[in-house]
Amino acid sequence: MTLSPSSPGPAFFGVGLGPGDPAYVTLRAREVLDRADRLVHFCKKGQRGNARTIADRIVGVDPAREIALVYPVTTEAPVADAAYAEPIAAFYAESAALLAAEAEAGRIVAILCEGDPFFYGSLMHLWRRLAPRFPFEVIPGISGMSGAWTLAATPITWGDDVLTVLPGTLPEGELARRLRDTDAAVVMKLGRNLPKVRRALAEAGLIDRAIYVERATMAEQVILPLGEKTDDAAPYFSMILVPGEGRRL
Amino acid sequence: MTLSPSSPGPAFFGVGLGPGDPAYVTLRAREVLDRADRLVHFCKKGQRGNARTIADRIVGVDPAREIALVYPVTTEAPVADAAYAEPIAAFYAESAALLAAEAEAGRIVAILCEGDPFFYGSLMHLWRRLAPRFPFEVIPGISGMSGAWTLAATPITWGDDVLTVLPGTLPEGELARRLRDTDAAVVMKLGRNLPKVRRALAEAGLIDRAIYVERATMAEQVILPLGEKTDDAAPYFSMILVPGEGRRL
Repeated sequence: MTLSPSSPGPAFFGVGLGPGDPAYVTLRAREVLDRADRLVHFCKKGQRGNARTIADRIVGVDPAREIALVYPVTTEAPVADAAYAEPIAAFYAESAALLAAEAEAGRIVAILCEGDPFFYGSLMHLWRRLAPRFPFEVIPGISGMSGAWTLAATPITWGDDVLTVLPGTLPEGELARRLRDTDAAVVMKLGRNLPKVRRALAEAGLIDRAIYVERATMAEQVILPLGEKTDDAAPYFSMILVPGEGRRL
Repeated sequence: MTLSPSSPGPAFFGVGLGPGDPAYVTLRAREVLDRADRLVHFCKKGQRGNARTIADRIVGVDPAREIALVYPVTTEAPVADAAYAEPIAAFYAESAALLAAEAEAGRIVAILCEGDPFFYGSLMHLWRRLAPRFPFEVIPGISGMSGAWTLAATPITWGDDVLTVLPGTLPEGELARRLRDTDAAVVMKLGRNLPKVRRALAEAGLIDRAIYVERATMAEQVILPLGEKTDDAAPYFSMILVPGEGRRL
């Protein structure tokens, strides 16, 4: 453990905080939450951000330590759209410069991440700018999908099952093709992609095995067979699980 | 929190302990380690088992609480081979009966798991026998692959990358086909499958992107580009990462 006043640790920490329940925070993450000079989180305008909400329940609210990085784009614009990519790239560059100044002032900066930082994490866009210049420790977290299959009481892979993780943003045909060709699947980033994902699951013959999971491990958690979900409303961080059926011993 | 003497919690806990470093144990897992009456782990004959070794570093060695479940099969026999499947199924059935007797005697039984219990975990074979009969809480853990990509300083998925998790036990042709058709991959269960996996990666043109990881987060950790690994010796719990190259913002 290198994070002490007498022996300053890395300038930056990327702290995976898990899927939502603060009981699933790691010992290392809690240690960094306790001792960092700055707690940084991403959020949408006017919202607190899931990672900061998890941290609040561990170390409380402390405005003096807090830095909120507010996304400039609030809707889910198409990925290839420059109207999304340009402002968001500028946002990451400006955020990295802001945090670099904090580190240069001698502060220990913890960037808070929901789930697991190196698995589709926003942190990665800051890490690739800052890690070449500063010591940077990343702390793995329980992924959102792990929280989902655990709380759904559904082992995801058995024996030699192949698991495919698919962003719901993919085209319907590609989703259906990949779903047909795997033993187990997790479809992430549902949001407004849910109707399309539902059709792809139907084409692959998997509707009856699919489980819809929203905000797993949190108080507002929703878990139900997809076939019983009658509407198409889904937050961006909801997902669908298709558990594997590999060998039971 | 339901695990207290005055308010007995579930009879069984399946405790994910993460990839090896005890700093990556969750708050909930530590709480259960502290308070359970029995700490159960799987091991090979004459060995202590990775999960128990992690727990030792949190709560110390306590023979009075410990139950070791010793695998009857020590080599990696082919999956479809009855000489493997029959003794191992009998072993799980006998182990479940032993643990059921502990729970029926009023004890809180924690079954320790390396990594994440519902992701290729041995625990699942006990869970499916015991969960229908007893309260059973599963605690997610940091997966071995998450420990691997974090310690390798390699984000595994960016943007809309598809991630495929492949057991190294699959046939070479199937491995190569699936590797060609994904953005990012993790090949688990290497062991003596390494030469075959290496050939499949070469067929898919991925040797230069592949990273070999052994015992990530532990003192004996080995991480190197696969192209620099000159021998074919690999423990069963080693893996290969092929990081995605999706959009950087």
